[in-house]
Amino acid sequence: MHASRIRMASLHEKIISATQAALLIKDGMTLGMSGFGGAGDAKAVPLALIEQARSTPLKINLITGASLGGGLDGKMAEAGLVARRMPFQGDAILRKAINEGRVVFIDQHLSEVVEQMRDGSLPTPDIAIVEAVSITEQGHIVPTSSVGNSASLALAAKQVIVELNLASNPNFEGLHDIYLPEDRPHRGPIPIRQSNERIGSPAIEIDPSRIAGIVICNTPEAAVTMLPPDHDTQAIADHLVRFFEQEVELGRLPRNLAPLQVGVGSIANAVMSGLIHAPFNDLVQYSEVLQDSTFDLLDAGKLKFASGCSITLSGPCGERVFGNLEKYADRLVLRPQEVSNHPEVIRRLGLIAINTALEFDLYGNVNSTHVCGTQMMNGIGGSGDFARNARLSIFVTKSTAKDGNISRVVPMVSHVDHTEHDVDILVTEHGLADLRGLAPRERARVIIDHCVHPDYREALADYFSAACLLGGHTPHDLSQALSWHVRLNNTGSMQQPN
Amino acid sequence: MHASRIRMASLHEKIISATQAALLIKDGMTLGMSGFGGAGDAKAVPLALIEQARSTPLKINLITGASLGGGLDGKMAEAGLVARRMPFQGDAILRKAINEGRVVFIDQHLSEVVEQMRDGSLPTPDIAIVEAVSITEQGHIVPTSSVGNSASLALAAKQVIVELNLASNPNFEGLHDIYLPEDRPHRGPIPIRQSNERIGSPAIEIDPSRIAGIVICNTPEAAVTMLPPDHDTQAIADHLVRFFEQEVELGRLPRNLAPLQVGVGSIANAVMSGLIHAPFNDLVQYSEVLQDSTFDLLDAGKLKFASGCSITLSGPCGERVFGNLEKYADRLVLRPQEVSNHPEVIRRLGLIAINTALEFDLYGNVNSTHVCGTQMMNGIGGSGDFARNARLSIFVTKSTAKDGNISRVVPMVSHVDHTEHDVDILVTEHGLADLRGLAPRERARVIIDHCVHPDYREALADYFSAACLLGGHTPHDLSQALSWHVRLNNTGSMQQPN
Repeated sequence: MHASRIRMASLHEKIISATQAALLIKDGMTLGMSGFGGAGDAKAVPLALIEQARSTPLKINLITGASLGGGLDGKMAEAGLVARRMPFQGDAILRKAINEGRVVFIDQHLSEVVEQMRDGSLPTPDIAIVEAVSITEQGHIVPTSSVGNSASLALAAKQVIVELNLASNPNFEGLHDIYLPEDRPHRGPIPIRQSNERIGSPAIEIDPSRIAGIVICNTPEAAVTMLPPDHDTQAIADHLVRFFEQEVELGRLPRNLAPLQVGVGSIANAVMSGLIHAPFNDLVQYSEVLQDSTFDLLDAGKLKFASGCSITLSGPCGERVFGNLEKYADRLVLRPQEVSNHPEVIRRLGLIAINTALEFDLYGNVNSTHVCGTQMMNGIGGSGDFARNARLSIFVTKSTAKDGNISRVVPMVSHVDHTEHDVDILVTEHGLADLRGLAPRERARVIIDHCVHPDYREALADYFSAACLLGGHTPHDLSQALSWHVRLNNTGSMQQPN
Repeated sequence: MHASRIRMASLHEKIISATQAALLIKDGMTLGMSGFGGAGDAKAVPLALIEQARSTPLKINLITGASLGGGLDGKMAEAGLVARRMPFQGDAILRKAINEGRVVFIDQHLSEVVEQMRDGSLPTPDIAIVEAVSITEQGHIVPTSSVGNSASLALAAKQVIVELNLASNPNFEGLHDIYLPEDRPHRGPIPIRQSNERIGSPAIEIDPSRIAGIVICNTPEAAVTMLPPDHDTQAIADHLVRFFEQEVELGRLPRNLAPLQVGVGSIANAVMSGLIHAPFNDLVQYSEVLQDSTFDLLDAGKLKFASGCSITLSGPCGERVFGNLEKYADRLVLRPQEVSNHPEVIRRLGLIAINTALEFDLYGNVNSTHVCGTQMMNGIGGSGDFARNARLSIFVTKSTAKDGNISRVVPMVSHVDHTEHDVDILVTEHGLADLRGLAPRERARVIIDHCVHPDYREALADYFSAACLLGGHTPHDLSQALSWHVRLNNTGSMQQPN
């Protein structure tokens, strides 16, 4: 039974049901779970755990790679199962619980979670649950569509539960490159010099005696919804392509640009897709989540290689890719998020990082996480890992939201995730602001001229003029700096009444 | 003449006066100059340039390592010589010009300046002026008390002016380790595994034909003023020592801690000095500016090795150290700031980074640069390079300023240089807040309990309670979030009138 999937014979006796596995998890435990961007989540045990919580008092602390898919984060929150959650989420139900203070959420740079765990700054998991496509002859775990933090969580946990997902294509095996930095103070360099280099092992090398149970499941990955490009995202992509063309002409970028990182979500995906018809070839991606656009570009022959830590696809794209993994085998690698997002590698390779902003301000500060400074959206994710260390740090957003009632370009952001020091280029559908080498007052003029929606341009220019009268390197009228957000809270719109 | 100082004989004919050298510098040029934290500045040519500006229209763009000493930044600003200045400064006169918008200032992570220059994102210098203690047989430049950006500026500039300072101890030679990362996309790892490793060359390896002139000067380094420890800085140091002791007891840190980075200035210096009587031995420093405290600890046998990119000392300490460099030769190295501050090395070595905050807020966001969000103080310097990538990112400050009229712990910082994601530990004279693994609301409680001055504690707790009623992951009342700063601007005090 499942001989090709569990190749270490002695492990067959560890097969248990999801319900039995869930019983290993006790109230107050810290749980590490596979899953990044809704890819490679454990699927059966969490549901059994939710079932168990109906009859037993059960609160756990949950650490994952990033967000869970298939509504799992919401279902667990709804069951009152989650006391503390880190480092990222993207679920409407969990989000509400976080914002109401019912779930404690620790929003973290994704590269740093397991580093801090090893240092003792964060708790280590009692139990790790890792989805696998197979277990090797040595008892090592082969992950499915994400690596995320799975390796470090499995190595740090006292016990490991493996969820063997028969619905996953066995050809995932060979795709992963599991490398973990050595413990400090005796750590060496991470020896990646090019996006396509493999430096680790194809499986998570745990001592198989630490496997407490193997749960067989057969649940296809939940697809994500990916909005198609629209007029605005196409305009953003066009601005960026024009910018890249200029950089190539000026000799600042080679014809194949630089390794690309692209953030999660429809806007970033649409921007990446915009490169299909651009005059750049032999592109390379060194990113976090690989989305539809990666495979569109691979299939179009524009992208040579893609490195990520997870693959999250829409339904149609998932059918095309997950059923034909062998086709991509020599053009794909999945790494631990500690490596995909590592400052050392990002800086060395000189990435072009394209991430989505929730809002940005006159001076180039970016808010990626908090609506009106208070309500958590998803979390910072990997955007900070990339933006800080990239060769070009680019943030994209539509200039307005909520039918024009929200300007995404504001006098002062209500929360800062990426400071003025970390942002090179800002793009909305109206244009591109190149902030490199500019002082705050210069940036303000470029942003007003190129990025803000015409409905808000005059108001933003007025704010800036008034602030300049007050002086300072970074002019602000602190009594008015957050007034657009206050007005939105009070009236439902940032627009000034006529 | 100066045969031991200019060991390539053919270069002797390039000796020119400071005035002649200054004449090479034309209106509109971009100038690269040595100097970091007031150490290793070019001293003669800038003064000649100021003189020249009295009779000729002359505006330059000035790029250095960091701040210049001896009031040079102020003198150049006063002469109206500086159009654009990057990446850091610390001069009262220049600061005023920046805040009044008369000098354009680009405030940057110190590790990134020359990286961005090589990428074409920043202008390259027309002329570089580098202070040297000697020129080798190969025509290579041996810097004095700082490396900073000198190597990259000299290599990137069209022409190089060397200021040979006879007042510098020839024993500076051998202290430097000049290594520059390779150009991307073919860059390899920076091969530093321990603070004391040397990976480069003892001199800046430029083609001597690019030396446009050598100016002989004989000007001792200006000493810096270093305030002695006081009751408050001693209390901060005591809190930190107690925290380190706990971390050692819990097995999270070894007995010799981890390589230490300590920010510039009297507070950080006093905190570092506090380690003299602490029960930690064989300490190692991997830092930026080495200050008095470094040599106090070296002399006390507590510190084994110190790596930096400049040495900035008070008068008495300078006499002790600069006259006896040979005594420290095997315990010191000076590197380019790109290496001393490189995220790759900082993360690999796992530094403990101790920097000074101007203010911090309820949720752990830190402002290092802008008084009341608008007036530039000095610049972010290296604090972001270190805080982001350190193993432990610590910010220290006295809890109040201006006779208690300013609380350095506020509801919302008026400018963010280090986000909540990058700050582990906050310390004031009242106590230490350990924010690791905490969510925003938890951080607020710890900060209110441990860091805020008693005169502001109730007001801060009241703000937090009221904000919590409004809800959100990070509770704020945006209409009041900056009210303490507004009150300070209006009344001269953050204190509420009775």
